Amino acid sequence: MEISVSRKAHFNAAHRLNIPSWSEEENKAFFGVCNNGNFHGHNYDLIVSITGEIDPITGYLTDMKWLGQVIKDKIEDRFDHKNLNLDCEEFKTLNPTTENIAVVIWNILRKEIPSHHQLKVTLYETERNFVEYNGN
Amino acid sequence: MEISVSRKAHFNAAHRLNIPSWSEEENKAFFGVCNNGNFHGHNYDLIVSITGEIDPITGYLTDMKWLGQVIKDKIEDRFDHKNLNLDCEEFKTLNPTTENIAVVIWNILRKEIPSHHQLKVTLYETERNFVEYNGN
Amino acid sequence: MEISVSRKAHFNAAHRLNIPSWSEEENKAFFGVCNNGNFHGHNYDLIVSITGEIDPITGYLTDMKWLGQVIKDKIEDRFDHKNLNLDCEEFKTLNPTTENIAVVIWNILRKEIPSHHQLKVTLYETERNFVEYNGN
Amino acid sequence: MEISVSRKAHFNAAHRLNIPSWSEEENKAFFGVCNNGNFHGHNYDLIVSITGEIDPITGYLTDMKWLGQVIKDKIEDRFDHKNLNLDCEEFKTLNPTTENIAVVIWNILRKEIPSHHQLKVTLYETERNFVEYNGN
Amino acid sequence: MEISVSRKAHFNAAHRLNIPSWSEEENKAFFGVCNNGNFHGHNYDLIVSITGEIDPITGYLTDMKWLGQVIKDKIEDRFDHKNLNLDCEEFKTLNPTTENIAVVIWNILRKEIPSHHQLKVTLYETERNFVEYNGN
Amino acid sequence: MEISVSRKAHFNAAHRLNIPSWSEEENKAFFGVCNNGNFHGHNYDLIVSITGEIDPITGYLTDMKWLGQVIKDKIEDRFDHKNLNLDCEEFKTLNPTTENIAVVIWNILRKEIPSHHQLKVTLYETERNFVEYNGN
Repeated sequence: MEISVSRKAHFNAAHRLNIPSWSEEENKAFFGVCNNGNFHGHNYDLIVSITGEIDPITGYLTDMKWLGQVIKDKIEDRFDHKNLNLDCEEFKTLNPTTENIAVVIWNILRKEIPSHHQLKVTLYETERNFVEYNGN
Repeated sequence: MEISVSRKAHFNAAHRLNIPSWSEEENKAFFGVCNNGNFHGHNYDLIVSITGEIDPITGYLTDMKWLGQVIKDKIEDRFDHKNLNLDCEEFKTLNPTTENIAVVIWNILRKEIPSHHQLKVTLYETERNFVEYNGN
Repeated sequence: MEISVSRKAHFNAAHRLNIPSWSEEENKAFFGVCNNGNFHGHNYDLIVSITGEIDPITGYLTDMKWLGQVIKDKIEDRFDHKNLNLDCEEFKTLNPTTENIAVVIWNILRKEIPSHHQLKVTLYETERNFVEYNGN
Repeated sequence: MEISVSRKAHFNAAHRLNIPSWSEEENKAFFGVCNNGNFHGHNYDLIVSITGEIDPITGYLTDMKWLGQVIKDKIEDRFDHKNLNLDCEEFKTLNPTTENIAVVIWNILRKEIPSHHQLKVTLYETERNFVEYNGN
Repeated sequence: MEISVSRKAHFNAAHRLNIPSWSEEENKAFFGVCNNGNFHGHNYDLIVSITGEIDPITGYLTDMKWLGQVIKDKIEDRFDHKNLNLDCEEFKTLNPTTENIAVVIWNILRKEIPSHHQLKVTLYETERNFVEYNGN
Repeated sequence: MEISVSRKAHFNAAHRLNIPSWSEEENKAFFGVCNNGNFHGHNYDLIVSITGEIDPITGYLTDMKWLGQVIKDKIEDRFDHKNLNLDCEEFKTLNPTTENIAVVIWNILRKEIPSHHQLKVTLYETERNFVEYNGN
């Protein structure tokens, strides 16, 4: 009997999209305003979803307070009010597209979530653009 | 050609999380403020999703007015403005976690929805915490 | 490594639900107020989701500006501020239920999206009623 | 000690914007796609706000169940799933802009709300466009 | 040059509406399901709005981190996961209607907010019912 | 007979809060993570509200397409995907707090909106923090 529980979190960050091996013109043509060298930013909304079996004693799949704390410690404290390109090791060589940020977050959280639980992350860059990744 | 249709519903209820076989201290340590003996409460948002084939004549998978009425009769009238622990038979011995409430709702609705249709319920305890269950 | 990217769009349209081969009474009994011969209308919210592999160079699954433009050209310009029954060829013989509109949109977009990408559309008729279709 | 209580309601309707004394070209130039002769439609979200004194016995400004019923009887039943131009007497000679619809709703509700209570209506035509009217 | 800044907060609580000097029948007739003796509950959404002048040095009207902390200390910690009738001194003799809760919150916060700043609270009992109070 | 019409818009920008005449330590102590020298960012949601009389012929207070275009030309194109501190003349010497950004936007739009119409701007830095300014 599998069930999924999800928790929403938030962080506000700056970024720019840029590929160092491309020329300035190529980057501007491909990424448009997202290539602004002075950076722009977003309020990222994150939904972390865990799938597994309900504990028959507690009625919990996982303790949401624990999950909320993991997300705060590992994701919000790491990315909130940061410049993803400059402040975050992961994006020094990886373009911080919403897709790549979602994969990075999934990889960080995968180490924290027990292995018998499946993990999916949904990341909203804006209310109109979002990405889902479950590691498959 | 399978499609899913979903309908949102709402109910407001009180509950507490508690395991009778545990001591007061164990319950308080595990469930924290959710263990408050005087109860607290939530606005539960429910999404009921049905999957199956579109009727080629009507263009409906199922009649949403009928589905809305089923949800009202079987779920909203049963749980709205209730104390889940005290007023609802299902939770006299089952801890009313979001996970367990979602499973109870799924089991109730499963009897009402034609068997050739799949059923999923999504239950929001708050805007930030939610559960999905599809009976598998 | 598969990921999904989604983009929201909107259109406002009029429609009525009606089956020409049924009598007026049968239509009214089955579709209720949705059968109003003078039409009523909705703000349709559309989420288009694409699944595939991230391009290792750009970090994009697909260019969201391109996707947004495709949705504007093929869906919003076609259906926004239209009467679905009278103005849109597709619904001259097909009942414009949310289910059928979702399938029509999926079929239109399927031709635009590269074939190695999966496609899902989620269509909200109201905040409380929505449909998901992925072509299977 | 004045307080305001508000209640949200909804209705889905078709309309077109048109001034009969103008030529077809003038109407099309001024109202654009909103002038479509076959109508388009919206999910209108309505917030009705009442201002006055709290009853010291009940702690209510007004009974929200009563207010919800008034809105249902006088507004939702009158405009939901209707063509505002064709089905609703008020708009046979009055252009159904969001502004005019808000004023019409205010005038209808003003007769139902006790005169010692102030009344404001907020009407959303879409999530991005809305109107507020308080009768002054 | 006056400006308003607002901050949203949340708390989840149980309550019942009841007037001790009325009979059980009178209470049930007037308050309906809200009178359930076993309590029900809500996710309350609170918006605290402060009006005053922008500090020309800092560009702040007030420090939102400070305001968030005040709301947490004085409101969320006091009411979250509580039974308003049983756990909260204020509602031992005051009916916990949304109106009365809003006034109680305003009175608590008024003592914390500098007197040269105006204060308004908006309290959502559900997404569809809310109350605004500014102390006048 | 006064009425207000409002239109929502959006822009995504980077910024940092900093007072050049303060020491690094003072800035960090006062603005906390918002002082990050590498910038962070937000999705700003903007609501522009105009108050005045309905035109008795058209039923419009103002043409929302025109208003939407003004907001796009003067605000979205100016601030979207920009670094407010580095790219925008207004914030080279003015701290880009939400309060100051709202005032700057109001001042820009005031020149565009006819003088017989009142103007208010509401600016959301996040879903939980917002500012309202009407020029008084």
